[in-house]
Amino acid sequence: MVATDIDMHIDTPDPTDPVFALHRGGKMQVAATVPLRDADDLSLSYTPGVARVCEAIHADPEVAHEYTWVSNTVAVVTDGTAVLGLGDIGPAASMPVMEGKAVLFKQFGGVDAIPVALDTTDVDEIVDTIARLAPSFGGINLEDISSPRCFEIERRLIERLDIPVFHDDQHGTAVVTLAALINAARLTDRDLSELKVVISGAGAAGVAIAKILRSAGVTKLSVTDRTGVVHLGRDDLNEVKQWLAEDTKAWAKPGSIEDALDGADVFIGVSGGTVPEEAVARMAPDSIIFAMANPNPEVHPEIAQRHARVVATGRSDFPNQINNVLVFPGIFSGALQVRATVISEGMKLAAAQAIADLVGDDLSESYVIPSPFDARVSTAVAKAVTDTARREGVARRPY
Amino acid sequence: MVATDIDMHIDTPDPTDPVFALHRGGKMQVAATVPLRDADDLSLSYTPGVARVCEAIHADPEVAHEYTWVSNTVAVVTDGTAVLGLGDIGPAASMPVMEGKAVLFKQFGGVDAIPVALDTTDVDEIVDTIARLAPSFGGINLEDISSPRCFEIERRLIERLDIPVFHDDQHGTAVVTLAALINAARLTDRDLSELKVVISGAGAAGVAIAKILRSAGVTKLSVTDRTGVVHLGRDDLNEVKQWLAEDTKAWAKPGSIEDALDGADVFIGVSGGTVPEEAVARMAPDSIIFAMANPNPEVHPEIAQRHARVVATGRSDFPNQINNVLVFPGIFSGALQVRATVISEGMKLAAAQAIADLVGDDLSESYVIPSPFDARVSTAVAKAVTDTARREGVARRPY
Repeated sequence: MVATDIDMHIDTPDPTDPVFALHRGGKMQVAATVPLRDADDLSLSYTPGVARVCEAIHADPEVAHEYTWVSNTVAVVTDGTAVLGLGDIGPAASMPVMEGKAVLFKQFGGVDAIPVALDTTDVDEIVDTIARLAPSFGGINLEDISSPRCFEIERRLIERLDIPVFHDDQHGTAVVTLAALINAARLTDRDLSELKVVISGAGAAGVAIAKILRSAGVTKLSVTDRTGVVHLGRDDLNEVKQWLAEDTKAWAKPGSIEDALDGADVFIGVSGGTVPEEAVARMAPDSIIFAMANPNPEVHPEIAQRHARVVATGRSDFPNQINNVLVFPGIFSGALQVRATVISEGMKLAAAQAIADLVGDDLSESYVIPSPFDARVSTAVAKAVTDTARREGVARRPY
Repeated sequence: MVATDIDMHIDTPDPTDPVFALHRGGKMQVAATVPLRDADDLSLSYTPGVARVCEAIHADPEVAHEYTWVSNTVAVVTDGTAVLGLGDIGPAASMPVMEGKAVLFKQFGGVDAIPVALDTTDVDEIVDTIARLAPSFGGINLEDISSPRCFEIERRLIERLDIPVFHDDQHGTAVVTLAALINAARLTDRDLSELKVVISGAGAAGVAIAKILRSAGVTKLSVTDRTGVVHLGRDDLNEVKQWLAEDTKAWAKPGSIEDALDGADVFIGVSGGTVPEEAVARMAPDSIIFAMANPNPEVHPEIAQRHARVVATGRSDFPNQINNVLVFPGIFSGALQVRATVISEGMKLAAAQAIADLVGDDLSESYVIPSPFDARVSTAVAKAVTDTARREGVARRPY
């Protein structure tokens, strides 16, 4: 689900074009869930009845999470700086993607999501703005905010708010990648701790994948950026890459991505770059390739297939589509159900395992991850999240 | 539609109570308007198709107002400082009212409205926050923000944004009041310019009613606050009351509300205070009383009826309910239809006339204003707004 720059001409909107016809007027709407036929209905939903609900929340703010739509809403917030593979196209132009995300939240998780595109790219302003919006929503899904700003924004919001904050480009991608890797390891009868893993890309997705793989027991891990392997000897590392270098120092060695791939078991591409066939050919037997750049994978799956046992991409037209939609609807559905205050590392790991488990006995080289349209997924993810939230004591709703 | 402090006990939410049962889980939801059945649907609504719409907006931001839900959305924004008659109950506790407003927007105007309750009461922060949200919405409806802060917030946002900004507590109330007064004057065969009018209340509603009545030709106008008539001789006036004193100086004389009502033709109550029967009794023959405090009118309508020809309130259980719901859905529906950049004074006047005109030949003492459930209203208001926007050259959408 990491996109590369797409070679396209810029359209003048043509209402007869299928894409523009579909987008005309937007892709979503609001609907009342209460009747408003007459004055009696109004007196319950609005004045004077509504004042009693206001008073009850004023006495106990937690009541808002039961008796308003905050109970089931998420803001999908962006600043428009890293939208798909298009890059920094600004807030207005990001809206179709945020709306798309919002309808996926509803379709797959039953969660009411609101697209919010902010007219600022300043970290302090973004944090302050989202914090001020917080009473209106049950959770915050950060989206398409460029790296490394996304790390600080997420960290500060998690510290400041008591509702879940989740940067999907990081953690959605990380959870679904781990789910696929759990199954690829099972298929090839190996333990995660044995696998030599190379992640290409040290942005939002790469960093989060590195973190979750470390949490899941991966020890032999190298992460590369455009300069090569991220390691402590480099003097060009920003704060988060410095952390990556520290966290992977036991295994990662200076060198190019080709060097790192030599003898590696797993390649995970979230960079949008390309990897030559020769490098892939020098990976270990039974290798695993997740080339997730979209629409142009780092290695074309047909080429990858020549050398690897398991190949996955972000695309729907090849087997094993690694798609965040398997993650974020269920994550927030679960978090909202139990009124979790955070999306913890434990919830993410449990979500990945739950997704992986759904494949069950049907596991094969071309089926290491469920389809995005597998209706079981969001329920399974939500259950993993609610169970973990209760176990970890971060569920505010005791049922 | 101005509410007074309601004497009520604070409820513990009881899911079997009709009000709480109705509010459980909130009063609204989001719904997709596009199909999401399979990978083909996803490729149109989401990647890769969506990127073409993003690119088109990036090339021309105006495209967002045709091809995203921004085309039909309004943020209903509050800081929770002046909610109904409950006062400063904070953002979380204001959400049931904002949601209620949002469902009224949809039900009566077909407009998708999103409740936004801000966790700040600082004027600069409110202005900055709303300005940063602007790319996500087609308009901003300010709601239940305390006076006099509401005036500065609205003014600064209007200056800063190119989408309509409308403080409903001011202008919704003003428009519907003018509509009722137009008909009450017609019924009693008088011109607005002859009427001696007293407005009780110099907050958001009182100031806006004074403004619109002046625009509509009223010259004999006094506005009172708790201290009495607002006039230039007072040294306790804030900026907006200073403006009021200046604007009404040709008529308004120092004195109490009782003094002002002596011989007056019209009483408009938006204060939440009470007016003694003796004062009402000294008004001119054929007097007009709009006692709009809710749920307790400044003069009980049965008492007012003894002395006045036309009596209106904010309540649904008496004739002539003066309710903003006649205004805001149609105002924004019209503004969004033609992509108006502002809600101008001309649009407000035209909206008031349109509402008044719907009463037509059925005009009587007990019918000077249409019912909130009169399905013709929002269409008529929207047409008044779109016609005026085109005439004034503030319609960005040329059809």
